[in-house]
Amino acid sequence: MRAVKLTGPGTLGLEEVATPEPGPGQVRVRVAGAGLCHSDLHVLHLGDAWPVFGGTVGHEGGGWIDALGDDVTGLTEGDAVVVSVIWSCGSCRACIEGRDNACTVAGTRTGLPLTPGLGPDGSMAEYIIVPARHAVPIGALDPATAAPLTDAGVTPMHAINTVLDRLTPAATVVVIGLGGLGHVALQILAAVSAARVIALDTDPAKRASAAEHGADLVLDSNEHAVERILTETDGVDADVVLDLVGVQPTVDLARRVVAAEGAIRLIGLGGGSLPVNAGVEGESLPWGVNVQRSYGGTRQDLVDVIALAQRGRISIETVTYSLEQFQQAFDDLEAGRVAGRAILVP
Amino acid sequence: MRAVKLTGPGTLGLEEVATPEPGPGQVRVRVAGAGLCHSDLHVLHLGDAWPVFGGTVGHEGGGWIDALGDDVTGLTEGDAVVVSVIWSCGSCRACIEGRDNACTVAGTRTGLPLTPGLGPDGSMAEYIIVPARHAVPIGALDPATAAPLTDAGVTPMHAINTVLDRLTPAATVVVIGLGGLGHVALQILAAVSAARVIALDTDPAKRASAAEHGADLVLDSNEHAVERILTETDGVDADVVLDLVGVQPTVDLARRVVAAEGAIRLIGLGGGSLPVNAGVEGESLPWGVNVQRSYGGTRQDLVDVIALAQRGRISIETVTYSLEQFQQAFDDLEAGRVAGRAILVP
Amino acid sequence: MRAVKLTGPGTLGLEEVATPEPGPGQVRVRVAGAGLCHSDLHVLHLGDAWPVFGGTVGHEGGGWIDALGDDVTGLTEGDAVVVSVIWSCGSCRACIEGRDNACTVAGTRTGLPLTPGLGPDGSMAEYIIVPARHAVPIGALDPATAAPLTDAGVTPMHAINTVLDRLTPAATVVVIGLGGLGHVALQILAAVSAARVIALDTDPAKRASAAEHGADLVLDSNEHAVERILTETDGVDADVVLDLVGVQPTVDLARRVVAAEGAIRLIGLGGGSLPVNAGVEGESLPWGVNVQRSYGGTRQDLVDVIALAQRGRISIETVTYSLEQFQQAFDDLEAGRVAGRAILVP
Amino acid sequence: MRAVKLTGPGTLGLEEVATPEPGPGQVRVRVAGAGLCHSDLHVLHLGDAWPVFGGTVGHEGGGWIDALGDDVTGLTEGDAVVVSVIWSCGSCRACIEGRDNACTVAGTRTGLPLTPGLGPDGSMAEYIIVPARHAVPIGALDPATAAPLTDAGVTPMHAINTVLDRLTPAATVVVIGLGGLGHVALQILAAVSAARVIALDTDPAKRASAAEHGADLVLDSNEHAVERILTETDGVDADVVLDLVGVQPTVDLARRVVAAEGAIRLIGLGGGSLPVNAGVEGESLPWGVNVQRSYGGTRQDLVDVIALAQRGRISIETVTYSLEQFQQAFDDLEAGRVAGRAILVP
Repeated sequence: MRAVKLTGPGTLGLEEVATPEPGPGQVRVRVAGAGLCHSDLHVLHLGDAWPVFGGTVGHEGGGWIDALGDDVTGLTEGDAVVVSVIWSCGSCRACIEGRDNACTVAGTRTGLPLTPGLGPDGSMAEYIIVPARHAVPIGALDPATAAPLTDAGVTPMHAINTVLDRLTPAATVVVIGLGGLGHVALQILAAVSAARVIALDTDPAKRASAAEHGADLVLDSNEHAVERILTETDGVDADVVLDLVGVQPTVDLARRVVAAEGAIRLIGLGGGSLPVNAGVEGESLPWGVNVQRSYGGTRQDLVDVIALAQRGRISIETVTYSLEQFQQAFDDLEAGRVAGRAILVP
Repeated sequence: MRAVKLTGPGTLGLEEVATPEPGPGQVRVRVAGAGLCHSDLHVLHLGDAWPVFGGTVGHEGGGWIDALGDDVTGLTEGDAVVVSVIWSCGSCRACIEGRDNACTVAGTRTGLPLTPGLGPDGSMAEYIIVPARHAVPIGALDPATAAPLTDAGVTPMHAINTVLDRLTPAATVVVIGLGGLGHVALQILAAVSAARVIALDTDPAKRASAAEHGADLVLDSNEHAVERILTETDGVDADVVLDLVGVQPTVDLARRVVAAEGAIRLIGLGGGSLPVNAGVEGESLPWGVNVQRSYGGTRQDLVDVIALAQRGRISIETVTYSLEQFQQAFDDLEAGRVAGRAILVP
Repeated sequence: MRAVKLTGPGTLGLEEVATPEPGPGQVRVRVAGAGLCHSDLHVLHLGDAWPVFGGTVGHEGGGWIDALGDDVTGLTEGDAVVVSVIWSCGSCRACIEGRDNACTVAGTRTGLPLTPGLGPDGSMAEYIIVPARHAVPIGALDPATAAPLTDAGVTPMHAINTVLDRLTPAATVVVIGLGGLGHVALQILAAVSAARVIALDTDPAKRASAAEHGADLVLDSNEHAVERILTETDGVDADVVLDLVGVQPTVDLARRVVAAEGAIRLIGLGGGSLPVNAGVEGESLPWGVNVQRSYGGTRQDLVDVIALAQRGRISIETVTYSLEQFQQAFDDLEAGRVAGRAILVP
Repeated sequence: MRAVKLTGPGTLGLEEVATPEPGPGQVRVRVAGAGLCHSDLHVLHLGDAWPVFGGTVGHEGGGWIDALGDDVTGLTEGDAVVVSVIWSCGSCRACIEGRDNACTVAGTRTGLPLTPGLGPDGSMAEYIIVPARHAVPIGALDPATAAPLTDAGVTPMHAINTVLDRLTPAATVVVIGLGGLGHVALQILAAVSAARVIALDTDPAKRASAAEHGADLVLDSNEHAVERILTETDGVDADVVLDLVGVQPTVDLARRVVAAEGAIRLIGLGGGSLPVNAGVEGESLPWGVNVQRSYGGTRQDLVDVIALAQRGRISIETVTYSLEQFQQAFDDLEAGRVAGRAILVP
């Protein structure tokens, strides 16, 4: 079969390799589509700081069960599935408690958990071998366009689930950044809560579609936004702020529009910093604000986004490339030329 | 009556003033005891940066209902009560949702909520006027020694209540700082959860009593602590870290011993800073850590600590001064000569 | 002013009485509308089994603040408000913990809490005296048509809030009874969750509008429904069942379509009985089902429904009568001739 | 190896059978101890109403990992483990959502989930084959005496976890029945909450040890108990009632001492019935009471009780029999002669 390999520091190549066989507890998935993500670019940018080369890339995958290893039950050849991004062990305390994105079996305390394409061979190939519990059935959904649910869907879903009890009907949630993850976040918020959604972006094109994705108010992400949000919330400010960008200006904006005892979730990986200070003086962050850098998601979060997609409540815009066009796809993503999620189709 | 007044920038004085009368919805409380707190020192240190002078100080008060204003029900003359630290309005959305420490009726978004002794006249006097809902009955407890429950009790109780669902029997919680609030935090943790408690302090004297207050393991708060906690938790690190000190070394320690998807609560006001970064590289804080600078508490938190005190599960060490000895008490607190909570008794 | 009085066992009359004055902590509300409810009929049916006569009836009220008693802050003459159905004390443990529908200050353990129109004078009059905390601002909403929010809105909102964490996107909720409360329950479910809603009624007219109120599937509430729901849920059955009717056939239906570890909320007062048996044999209720007879709601529930109405997510169909037409309104309600909520407008 | 078999309707026999081999994803456990439970007697009493004969009995097991099948990771030969009572699939929605006691893969909607000894061969043998995820490490605990944790520990733990958020320090929980499960419930409550515990039993011998297991007040379970509990709770009654017996008198007692908006958990299987009525009149159950017949528990519950046992917070009294003495053990259990949990040791 053909597979896109991380051939060396910052370089990719399409190679012909043997079609793998599933071992006990594993399944082989015939790939329908594999999504590209900025974290794939990140690996390329790391160059020789990235530890291992030669593996198949791609952590967002969908397809059909093609072969079953021994000891696999509950799955049938031909089932449409997506592939979990985090291959948690299922047996450690974190997994049992439903925090399987904190499974440390294959990672370090501050490192990444076990993820296909970032260690085990990923989805940018004709076939992928997957632990049976991480091949998640999606019913009648199209596995190619469903592939990004596993990351572009799960990531905002997870962040939102961590603040769901705050999203009462009288609450206000501010969403900063209406691109790839942001437009999914808007759809999820509209589906799972009745909170008022204020959506911000600096890009008029991205703001244009926010209302149809469920935003109640769409604002240019500029200096006036701070004052406007305070006014809109009767001087209280936002109960929740989701920052899907994470550069310093958006992090600062989050800090300036969150209410006392409110919550900020940093989802975008733009490198901005939010200091939480243990002091009284010189504070610009209100008291009691709950801050979390959200990463990935849990199996529960994946079940949630699959259900939302099946019920037509979320859809992720996709642009399709053939597997051979992998370099073009990466170049387009790097250049910001992809409107939606880029998907490689073998 | 006599009252300790903030007479000017950084200065206090005992004055003779008229005994106040309760208006509608208010009660007059005959003060049994008024606790001193480091935030009282903080006001003095602010000097002329503090906005208003002439008020009675003291935000931790307990006593007996002495007179009832019109429209007060459910309270009787002679009832022993403590005085809430946060005089929330009871009717705004934050109050109705049980987040009355976020009540903004009398404060600003980043400022302090309405607190006796920091605006309205406080408890360092023979009598204090209190909104009826903030005079909370304590049954058979002694109102002098119960006074610190309202702040030294409520503050750790609130922080712990925000992480209570994480404190499962298999969880580990690290408590940094075993002084005034820390020894109360230990007692609360032992009462309300079965989580393992690791207690840290640099002071051997404070470590000495930690075990009897419920700590399972007591460590010197030094460089070895980081490695030891990792070992004790099978490489996972602590589910929850409570920092009761808040200086840079303790904040850094919290950061280094918290598990992925764990939680840090900054309670002490030592001026340290914990940056939460929206990035991938150079991270020393694990993914998904939930950070909150905890402030004060809610009426629910106060109900909780009163019940714990009534059931003998927490006790706060106190040192008594007469009202006339106020300056001595403040001097002793400043000099670190008070073992326990200093209380002025009129 | 004129007021509809419970003049004797099962009889009502319109009387001219003195316009009341608000005491300390109270406000006078000029009534814009007062809703009729089946529990009003219930009081009439009780005849001389009802304890006290001579009071003004009406527990669903809305209007404008007309006069303020002493010690009332945060409200202004002219403000549009609705009147809470449960006049909780605000200071007992139940109230502080947010369970103010369990406030026992004015009730007995199994009796009703303090409710206007069922003890204190109610809303079927030109003016009503209300404790300030129970006159809840509604902003720009019309207080006449908003009056039913306090009961017909709050009652389903409360039941739904007790199961909200079960209403994940992959969950199924069955709503039995699509009349007065049922059509509100559908709208709330569509607003606050992404769970799939299966709506049942025996009346084709009521089924007709269920889809536009947010039902995903509408079924005749007959024998086939049991099998159909099992099929629709892949053999698992419903995560949550809301019974808005409460007669024996609907209670039995709830029992037969709820999943193991699911939840049933009995909201309608039709007199049916659901036995929960502490045994193994002869069980028709699955293991672990959580059953609750839901009553009224909390201040939080009222805040939620007001926000939903302000944001256009719920609307309650109303039919208007003048205050003089009170007998006609009650007769129409008794005869089932009211399509929506009947409202008396002074 | 030797195994205790359900040889026919109501009859057991010790047989010599081949030692089984673990398949992929399975482990073989060398049994250290197998607990007896009243539900084992129940199967015998069912006679020919029980569906299948010939299997090894015993659903409470502990031992050491003896052999690993293919595709088993994270376990090592020699590890001390206990065997989960519910062999959930780990992949259905219920399992992913942490409600694996509702896993329906091997059961029916109202039937039992997959349980060793009640379908697959159980623990009353020298060896048992276990799915790897259901062999749960217990560290340094003795696997013979730890065996009952899986059922006698998990069952009350699960019930308590469903009401944990109600067990605030000011709350009161009533425990009815201080026998096998009851004395464990007392220990768990004392460990995980600060709520006041009122313990009831009709048997003076069982009441005698309740205080040392953490009860704050121990009462004879008679008519006076109802009035006493009302007095002890200032007229409010109990926030939570755990009925570990489940006969009609205890169920009636639960109904009579629970507060409005309180909770009842039926854990004992004594055959009593608690009607929840959808009506206004003739009610003896207060409004809003939450009722659940609790069954078994989840993997999380098992993690919790193992941690409590490891930390010395709970211990289950046990009486040991050899495997050959199985009939004596069952006879003693039937006759009520076992003080503690009976355990067969191969």
